[in-house]
Amino acid sequence: MADRQPVALVIGAGDATGGAIARRFAKGGYTVCATRRTLDKLQPLIDRIQADGGQAHGFASDARKEEEVVALIEKIESTIGAIDVLVFNIGANVPSSILEESARKYFKVWEMACFGGFLNAREVAKRMVAREGDGVRRTIIFTGATASLRGSANFAAFAGAKHALRALAQSMARELGPRGIHVAHTIIDGAIDTEFIRENFPQRYALKDQDGILNPEHIADAYWMLHMQPRDAWTHELDLRPWMEKF
Amino acid sequence: MADRQPVALVIGAGDATGGAIARRFAKGGYTVCATRRTLDKLQPLIDRIQADGGQAHGFASDARKEEEVVALIEKIESTIGAIDVLVFNIGANVPSSILEESARKYFKVWEMACFGGFLNAREVAKRMVAREGDGVRRTIIFTGATASLRGSANFAAFAGAKHALRALAQSMARELGPRGIHVAHTIIDGAIDTEFIRENFPQRYALKDQDGILNPEHIADAYWMLHMQPRDAWTHELDLRPWMEKF
Amino acid sequence: MADRQPVALVIGAGDATGGAIARRFAKGGYTVCATRRTLDKLQPLIDRIQADGGQAHGFASDARKEEEVVALIEKIESTIGAIDVLVFNIGANVPSSILEESARKYFKVWEMACFGGFLNAREVAKRMVAREGDGVRRTIIFTGATASLRGSANFAAFAGAKHALRALAQSMARELGPRGIHVAHTIIDGAIDTEFIRENFPQRYALKDQDGILNPEHIADAYWMLHMQPRDAWTHELDLRPWMEKF
Amino acid sequence: MADRQPVALVIGAGDATGGAIARRFAKGGYTVCATRRTLDKLQPLIDRIQADGGQAHGFASDARKEEEVVALIEKIESTIGAIDVLVFNIGANVPSSILEESARKYFKVWEMACFGGFLNAREVAKRMVAREGDGVRRTIIFTGATASLRGSANFAAFAGAKHALRALAQSMARELGPRGIHVAHTIIDGAIDTEFIRENFPQRYALKDQDGILNPEHIADAYWMLHMQPRDAWTHELDLRPWMEKF
Repeated sequence: MADRQPVALVIGAGDATGGAIARRFAKGGYTVCATRRTLDKLQPLIDRIQADGGQAHGFASDARKEEEVVALIEKIESTIGAIDVLVFNIGANVPSSILEESARKYFKVWEMACFGGFLNAREVAKRMVAREGDGVRRTIIFTGATASLRGSANFAAFAGAKHALRALAQSMARELGPRGIHVAHTIIDGAIDTEFIRENFPQRYALKDQDGILNPEHIADAYWMLHMQPRDAWTHELDLRPWMEKF
Repeated sequence: MADRQPVALVIGAGDATGGAIARRFAKGGYTVCATRRTLDKLQPLIDRIQADGGQAHGFASDARKEEEVVALIEKIESTIGAIDVLVFNIGANVPSSILEESARKYFKVWEMACFGGFLNAREVAKRMVAREGDGVRRTIIFTGATASLRGSANFAAFAGAKHALRALAQSMARELGPRGIHVAHTIIDGAIDTEFIRENFPQRYALKDQDGILNPEHIADAYWMLHMQPRDAWTHELDLRPWMEKF
Repeated sequence: MADRQPVALVIGAGDATGGAIARRFAKGGYTVCATRRTLDKLQPLIDRIQADGGQAHGFASDARKEEEVVALIEKIESTIGAIDVLVFNIGANVPSSILEESARKYFKVWEMACFGGFLNAREVAKRMVAREGDGVRRTIIFTGATASLRGSANFAAFAGAKHALRALAQSMARELGPRGIHVAHTIIDGAIDTEFIRENFPQRYALKDQDGILNPEHIADAYWMLHMQPRDAWTHELDLRPWMEKF
Repeated sequence: MADRQPVALVIGAGDATGGAIARRFAKGGYTVCATRRTLDKLQPLIDRIQADGGQAHGFASDARKEEEVVALIEKIESTIGAIDVLVFNIGANVPSSILEESARKYFKVWEMACFGGFLNAREVAKRMVAREGDGVRRTIIFTGATASLRGSANFAAFAGAKHALRALAQSMARELGPRGIHVAHTIIDGAIDTEFIRENFPQRYALKDQDGILNPEHIADAYWMLHMQPRDAWTHELDLRPWMEKF
C-alpha cells in the first residue's frame, strides 16, 4: 500500500545535482523516487538516503520513451503515492560546430534535455490537476542553463534543447499556475562541483577552494526553497551562479 | 549546366509568406528553388515567377529527412548553382493544453519547425563556408514568431520549437557571421494575410482593410532588405507587426 | 559606540514591503536602519521591531539628495556599525499618457526610483569594498517590478526608472560580485497587500482571500533568502508573483 | 510661409550618425531640421545638405531643457512645417566604476541620453496625434546601443540611461502605434566610423578596411528603411552590427 508521505520524483538523479536534489527532498520528509536509464548506478544514492533515515526508491526509466514514462508514473502513483514534486534534471551537452553537428546528435540532445522533460511533466501534471484544490503543495522544476537564454557559437544543439525546455516551463507555468501547480525553471550559470568538471576542466575545478563552482547541495537547497514558497509569492525563474562567475 | 545567376532556396514555399519571399528574390534576380513536401502545390508559384520573367524551380523535399535534405542541396548545387540565400519558413502550430498534448504532435511540431531548419541550414552552411572570402553576399534567414520569445499557455509545442529555432539562428550567427554569412531571425508578430486566417479568424481577417494583418509581400520585402544589408550593418533579429497589433 | 551586530539599511521603509523587510532582517539578528523622507511615519515600525526584541533605528533621509545620503551612510557607519545589507525599496508610479506626462513628474519618478538607488548603493558599496575579503556576508538588493522588463503604454516614466534601476543592479553585480558583494534585483509582479491596493483596487484586494496578492512578509522572506545564499550559488534576479497572476 | 515638404527633425545631429541620418532624410525629400547644443558646428552639415540640393535648417537647442524643446518644436511647426519624423540620437558614455561614479555625471548621462529623448518625443508626439488619420507616414526613432539591453560593469550610468530610453520607446510604441505613429528603437552594437573611434581606438578603427565598424550612412539607410515600412509590417526594434562583431 502507498504510504502517506508526500512523494518527490527526480528524473535524472544520476549526476551530482540530481542526487543532491533527491537527498534534499528526502531530508524534507518526501519519499523520493529517483530515476536513471539504468538502475545499478542509482543504488548508492538510494542507500545513502536510506542510511540518512529517508525514504527512497530507484527506477530505471528512459525519459525519452513515452511508454516507459507513462508506466513509471503509473507505478509510482499506484504503489508509492501521489507525486507532489517533479524535478526534471537531464542535460546533455557536447559542443560542435554547426558545420559538423550530426542530425543524430542534434536530435538526441533535444530528446534527452527537452522531450523527456515534456513527457514526464505532462504525465505528472495530469495527475496533479486531478487533485486540484486539495491544498497540497505541488511543484514542477526544470533545470536550465546559460544556454537556455543564449545560443552561443558551437552550442546550437544544447541551446536549442534548453531554449525549448524553457518554453515548456513558461507555457506550463502560465497554464498550470492558476491551477495551483508551481512550475519553475532554473538557470544554472557556472560549473558545478562534479566528477566531469574535475576531470575535464581542472583549472575551473580548482576554483572550488574559493567557492568558484556551484555546490550541488546549494542548488538542491534552492530547489527546496522554490517548493516551499507560499503561493502568493512564487518564483518562476531562478538563476544561480558563483560570486566570481562572469555573466 | 548550372547558370550564372545567384540562387535562393526557400524551404517551405507553400504558404503565402514563403511564396512571396520566393517571388521577391526572383524579382531581385535570383534563381529561386522552392520546396514543399509535395510538388503539385508548388507549381502555381513556379508558374507565376516564370510568368513574371523570373527563374524558379520546384522541389519536393521533406525538410525533416536528412537524406532528402542532403540530396536536395547536392542536386541544386550541381545542377542549378551555388546557393547564396536560404530561407527556412516552415511552421506548424496547433495549440493544445499541456495536459492533452500528444508526444507525437509535440515531436512533429519540433521536427517540422526546428529540426528541418537545422538540417537545411547545416547543409547549406557547409557549402557557403567552403566559398568564404569570395565576396559574394550570403544570407540564411529563419522565420520566427511571437512564440519564439514567449511560452504562452497551450503553446508548449510551438513555443518550444520556435525557441529552439531561435537558439539555432543565434548560434549560427555567432559562428558564421565572422565567416561572412549573414544569419538572421525574424519575429512575425501578428496574423498574416492567408487563406488560413481568412477562413478561421474572419474577424481578424477583416482588419485587412485597415492594414491590421501582415501582407506577405511586405514580409518578403523585409527579407530582401536583410539580404541586401551591407556587412558592416547587419541585423540579426527583426520583428514585424501591424501598427495596431498589441504587443 | 557602534554595537557588534551586523547592520541592514532599508531605504524606503515606509510602505508595507519595506517595513516587512526591515522586520525580517531584525528578526535575523541585524540592527536595522530604516529610512523615509520624514521620521514620524517611521516610528511605528521602529517600535514594532523593538517590541519584538530587535534593534532598529529610524532616519529621515531624502534618498535623492547626495549630501543627505552621504551623511546618512557616514552617520550609520560611525555610530551604529558597518553596513552589511542595503535594500533599496523606493518606487513611484503614477501612470500617464506620454502625451500628458509632465517633465517634472517624469524626472521625479526617475529621481526617486532610480537616482536614489544609485546614490545609496554607491555610498554603501564604497564602504563594503573597503572591507573586501573579511569573510562577512554582504548584500545589496534593489526592488524591481514588471515595469523593469517591459515598457507598457502609459508607463513611460515608471518603466524608464525601473529599467534604469535594473541596469544599475546588473552593472553593480558584474563589478562587485567578484569583490564579494551579492547584488540582486527582484521583479515584484503583482499587487502587494497594502493600504494603497485595498483602497484603490478593492476587487484586486479581494483576491487576498485566495492568496492572489503578495504578502509583504513573504517578499521579505525572499530578500532574506537572497542574503543567506552561499556565495557559490547566488541569484541575481528573482521574480515573485502570486500563483494566479497572469504573466 | 511653411513649405510643403515633409519635415524630419534630427535631435543630436552633431556626430557622424546624426549627420548621416539628416542627409538621408534630406535625400528622401524631407526638409531636415537638425539640432545641436550650439549652432556653429551644425553649419557644415546644413551646407552639405543644401549643396546636395536638399533642404536643411540648423537649430541650437539644449535637448534637456523643456522650454527650449517646446520652443523648438513650436518654431519648426509654425515656420517650416508639420514634423513627420523625429530621430533622437543623443548619447553620452564615459565609463566609470560604480565606486567612482559621480552623482553629477550619472545624472547628466541620463539627462542627455534619456530625458532629452522624452522631452522631444513628447512634444513631437502631441503634434503628430493631433493629425491622426490624415494618412501621412509618421515615425519616431530612438538610437539605442548594446547597453540598452545589458548593464555591464563600469557602465551603470550609460546602461541606465539607455535602458530607460528603451522603456520610453516601448511605452510610446504601445500607446502611439495604434494611433498611427511608428515608434522604433535601434540597437547599435559595434563601433561606428567616427573621429572619436579613430582617435581613441585606432586598432578598432583599423577594422574599417574589412567593414568591421559601422558606416554611419548604412545606419542612416536603416533608419530610412524603418520610416518607409508599410504600416502592416512595422519593426519596433532593429539591431545593427558589423559582420565580425562579437555578440
